[in-house]
Amino acid sequence: MNKALLSLSMVAAISLSASAGELMDMAKKAGLKPIPQDEATLMKMIDNPKNPVTAKKVELGKKLYFDPRLSKSGLISCNTCHNLATGGVDGVGPATGHMWRHNPHHLNSPTVYNAVFADKQFWDGRSPDLEDQAQGPMQASPEMAATKKHVEEVVNSMPEYVKEFQAAYDNPKMKPTFKDVADVIGDFERTLVTPSRYDDYLNGNENAMSKEEKEGMKIFIQKGCAACHTGVALGGGMQPFPVAGKYKYANVGDFKGDKNGMVKTPTLRNILETRPYFHNGAVWDIKEAIQIMGETQLGTKISDEEASKIATFFGALTGKKPKVEYPMLPASTDKTPKPDLN
Amino acid sequence: MNKALLSLSMVAAISLSASAGELMDMAKKAGLKPIPQDEATLMKMIDNPKNPVTAKKVELGKKLYFDPRLSKSGLISCNTCHNLATGGVDGVGPATGHMWRHNPHHLNSPTVYNAVFADKQFWDGRSPDLEDQAQGPMQASPEMAATKKHVEEVVNSMPEYVKEFQAAYDNPKMKPTFKDVADVIGDFERTLVTPSRYDDYLNGNENAMSKEEKEGMKIFIQKGCAACHTGVALGGGMQPFPVAGKYKYANVGDFKGDKNGMVKTPTLRNILETRPYFHNGAVWDIKEAIQIMGETQLGTKISDEEASKIATFFGALTGKKPKVEYPMLPASTDKTPKPDLN
Repeated sequence: MNKALLSLSMVAAISLSASAGELMDMAKKAGLKPIPQDEATLMKMIDNPKNPVTAKKVELGKKLYFDPRLSKSGLISCNTCHNLATGGVDGVGPATGHMWRHNPHHLNSPTVYNAVFADKQFWDGRSPDLEDQAQGPMQASPEMAATKKHVEEVVNSMPEYVKEFQAAYDNPKMKPTFKDVADVIGDFERTLVTPSRYDDYLNGNENAMSKEEKEGMKIFIQKGCAACHTGVALGGGMQPFPVAGKYKYANVGDFKGDKNGMVKTPTLRNILETRPYFHNGAVWDIKEAIQIMGETQLGTKISDEEASKIATFFGALTGKKPKVEYPMLPASTDKTPKPDLN
Repeated sequence: MNKALLSLSMVAAISLSASAGELMDMAKKAGLKPIPQDEATLMKMIDNPKNPVTAKKVELGKKLYFDPRLSKSGLISCNTCHNLATGGVDGVGPATGHMWRHNPHHLNSPTVYNAVFADKQFWDGRSPDLEDQAQGPMQASPEMAATKKHVEEVVNSMPEYVKEFQAAYDNPKMKPTFKDVADVIGDFERTLVTPSRYDDYLNGNENAMSKEEKEGMKIFIQKGCAACHTGVALGGGMQPFPVAGKYKYANVGDFKGDKNGMVKTPTLRNILETRPYFHNGAVWDIKEAIQIMGETQLGTKISDEEASKIATFFGALTGKKPKVEYPMLPASTDKTPKPDLN
């Protein structure tokens, strides 16, 4: 290599590294944060002091997460709509549950993966945490349609479940309540985090993301997307969203947001696996979703090319899913309430 | 120990051992056969020369078994009705699928565990093997309600699936067909066998079953139950069954059996986990089921006590389930057909 070429390649290396530092800087200023690599830090972040995550509770919560007998029909589990095999979602427009009822507001099932990082739960943010959230779908008539009593009778009818609760809570006289069931399900859900190449990058591995992905990330930040899609969750907070009016798909469903018209920003983690998009699942194409967001939320036009690049960046947000051994559930007993298909 | 006691205990030991040999003999004469302990023998037994079981096909078949996108709605997988977590069944009366439709004849989903040992598949035995069977529910309108074209489009829309087929069949140009999908699902199902303490006993471990279980097994054989519930499957063949007339629950559904009025005998393996019972899922209590069978099939009265003892024997038929890592499925692409909830 001659001197001129050598110095040129040195310049290139320097400016690339400068630009890399610049992007990292932009990310920091935009409030983008990685899933911590350090396990203790992560454990502290996902824990709930009021409902500490323990191995026994997580294992029990996993069983209940997959147990369709908690539903009135005996056919629908948490995993039906928040399917761990398919990005933590059901992949349909409106959540569909008991008796094939659709969510009355045409709301789409959000992913359970990384839900622990959200400030609030549900599209209208009415729930403060996963334990509280888990109580909702079990009882909602278009979802699992169960009563608290049904859930308690199911769990208490199987000695194996009762023993596991007693062991997990170190209370040999425990009779698990509806709240206990939701709590351990919440514990399991807290562990469903999916570190990605994007996290590796933010954690300092310059080569974890491709040049194209970094370019998309830069546009993502420059356009202002990270104003709402920020933090570890890349979302999870409440924002004004035009559920009616100028939003192109405002006629799908009749969701109004919370009492102030605010709607929860969905996480962008694993977004390429969680179609369809938006609270009403009206949009199937990620580039269309990006462009609509630019227009309605940021008042800016995002070109086809820019949207493509942002979508390329989203590929780096597809995370590694935790391994889940499919649970073998305790057998029903004579005391287990019979399923009711109606 | 004094001499008298010593000789008494020797007599007891001898007569117990004689009775054990006697039971083993009865079992053999009744055609009862264990799941072989030797892996090579078992592999040969579960294999299908026309669709050889290989590790790659089994892994791919597992993914497809759990993939709800094979259904029209995107919500129903093989595992919905044949749930590996709950004894390989759904635990409801009539199989319930697309749009919450029930099986039109009120037929109950049979367990997928050990289905490989059955002579025929479906309650009317119309299917010769698991590969052929798997084609049915995918297309049935009250089940997954898909067309062959839909299934093929779904699978071919995801490069990861196509590559896995190409690798499994060592054919880099393969475009998987509907039949290929059913074939690898069948391969996966062939591996779902659950050796139990009953098998250990028949394989020579005298202590694998309790005294009470052996007593129940003896009554089971003496009453004639093993006339139909025989072989490795403890069932799986076609038998005349009074779907109408003297059968107490004949009014549940309108199933007529095959063209000769024959109905498939369900396996008794894991029977304590697969309520409700019979082709129409009309009976929830195992003792009642045993007594009805005695009356309608064998023309004999089985007392409460005898039914209890037979049910105790059934406990030894609860087998060890294979470990299943819950699959993380390929992400849908723009080419994947959208789910249709209607």
